[in-house]
Amino acid sequence: MNLHIQKKAEFSLIDQFFKKKTLMRADVSLGIGDDAALLTVPADHELVMAVDTLVEGVHFPPHTTPQEIGYKALAVNLSDLAAMGATPAWMLLAATLPSADKEWIEQFSAGLFELAQSFNVQLVGGDSTRGPLTVTVQITGFVPTHKALCRHGAKVGDKIYVSGPLGDAGLGLQVATGKWQLSGVDKAQALQRLNRPFPRVHLGILLREYASSAIDISDGLLADLGHLLTASRVGAYVDAEQLPLSNLLCRTLALNEARKLALTAGDDYELCFTVAPAKESALLEQLARENITCYCIGEITDHLETINLHGVTGSLDQLGFTHWG
Amino acid sequence: MNLHIQKKAEFSLIDQFFKKKTLMRADVSLGIGDDAALLTVPADHELVMAVDTLVEGVHFPPHTTPQEIGYKALAVNLSDLAAMGATPAWMLLAATLPSADKEWIEQFSAGLFELAQSFNVQLVGGDSTRGPLTVTVQITGFVPTHKALCRHGAKVGDKIYVSGPLGDAGLGLQVATGKWQLSGVDKAQALQRLNRPFPRVHLGILLREYASSAIDISDGLLADLGHLLTASRVGAYVDAEQLPLSNLLCRTLALNEARKLALTAGDDYELCFTVAPAKESALLEQLARENITCYCIGEITDHLETINLHGVTGSLDQLGFTHWG
Repeated sequence: MNLHIQKKAEFSLIDQFFKKKTLMRADVSLGIGDDAALLTVPADHELVMAVDTLVEGVHFPPHTTPQEIGYKALAVNLSDLAAMGATPAWMLLAATLPSADKEWIEQFSAGLFELAQSFNVQLVGGDSTRGPLTVTVQITGFVPTHKALCRHGAKVGDKIYVSGPLGDAGLGLQVATGKWQLSGVDKAQALQRLNRPFPRVHLGILLREYASSAIDISDGLLADLGHLLTASRVGAYVDAEQLPLSNLLCRTLALNEARKLALTAGDDYELCFTVAPAKESALLEQLARENITCYCIGEITDHLETINLHGVTGSLDQLGFTHWG
Repeated sequence: MNLHIQKKAEFSLIDQFFKKKTLMRADVSLGIGDDAALLTVPADHELVMAVDTLVEGVHFPPHTTPQEIGYKALAVNLSDLAAMGATPAWMLLAATLPSADKEWIEQFSAGLFELAQSFNVQLVGGDSTRGPLTVTVQITGFVPTHKALCRHGAKVGDKIYVSGPLGDAGLGLQVATGKWQLSGVDKAQALQRLNRPFPRVHLGILLREYASSAIDISDGLLADLGHLLTASRVGAYVDAEQLPLSNLLCRTLALNEARKLALTAGDDYELCFTVAPAKESALLEQLARENITCYCIGEITDHLETINLHGVTGSLDQLGFTHWG
């Protein structure tokens, strides 16, 4: 018998919806459509690889749009590369979807590829399966050999910096889950900070030459700084009075409450990094040239795995890890 | 106030259960425990990357053990690398689990690392989230530059080979879902073929020097051969009388039904590849030296994207794609 191959059958969701939308990089020999992707790594560079999953009901609250899910699935991965000082290159997408809803997928891919385009990231493969909504993005980038930023490089006396206002995404989560009421521009801004974090990739690359250690703030400043201190076997003095707070947060919460949120809430995806005193002025000059503002919030101490916290009162029961639902 | 960093809080499931169990490769500068992994790629090689997800209720039937899920999650990815002729190196694991059930995770990791050990694969990172059971493994390997096997290289006149008996995993699925009754050794063997496919990595590496194209048989021979024909813009003559069938399949089904299952059922994870006539005898000699048997089942034709099928009667409505549930 003669069997004519059915064109449609051979296309997975990834092929159907995503293949044409991705940009094409010169270092991709073979992208979507074979059993695996073929890629070329530049000489004298190390690969940097991360993976993050977003699960409905856990990582995004109800009413998050498909566009926001697509954007954020990549943003959280880019933020991991930013924390390592890496230049992003390729991503793989494993999408588990309840149904092949074209409109949903179109919007999801619009959010995903908007951000991918900004950072020159090519989708090189993936897997689409049916099941409860779960989106996993695996991202790969490069860093010149021995230039990666790690969590374990902080030394006693290093200054501790953060790259931008903290606590806004935490406020956004409270708004999204109905625990706090905001309206108009304030509501939109809080949700924007929750759903569309801007990964600090360019800052991460710049910091390769200056920072002694770095981490991205996904679980909350105290929790993530804690990871950095543990990896570096040091402690920290943190002055909450120096925490950058947005106007939105300051006009919404009392100052002490705003600082608590900035210390403990997750999902801001700013960087926290340390810099040796000898490199601090050169870093500040470079940041000024690039028009980037970072904020010194404390100093590394020899008080092993302890954070000495100044400028906030009352209990801090929850040290980050604010998972939703 | 002084905050002492809570040791436990900083460990994800990946750190807790998996970090100590993985082997350590010399090309991993930084594995589990930072924002991303740092890896070194050998000179004159291309990277080969794939990702596959297993979803409960879709990719494994009820009563699949955690050990079998762990094994298979890696096996299906290794099979993708095998189809490209790649040498496996590193994996990332994104595990979404309903609860942090220690016993389940122990068994899952036993299955995963048993196979990882066999193929010298290091777990270099991951993400653990709470939600409906979904396991995504992303695997990376290497292949000497320009030596990868692809789907698109088959030429008219090339011989078509498969690497082992087909249809057993399909029978295993029918047993696992109660659609077919087997007992004793037969039942165990059918389920073994479904749950513990052996990825043909060594064969894939050997084929770099001989095959003109290759694909792994995950969706069923006709479906996957169809992908290969489409990519290569050719057709095929397939003689079902030449299909390798296990003794189990032959004693369980009538011959024509056994051939139908071998043509259409998925999950065997054997390789299907093509070889130019000029290289065939050298390949067969090499296979004999390595004690590997492969089976010639047909030939590439110029009958574009059409399979001329001999040796089987009756309808073949389902061309592979036998997803479960």
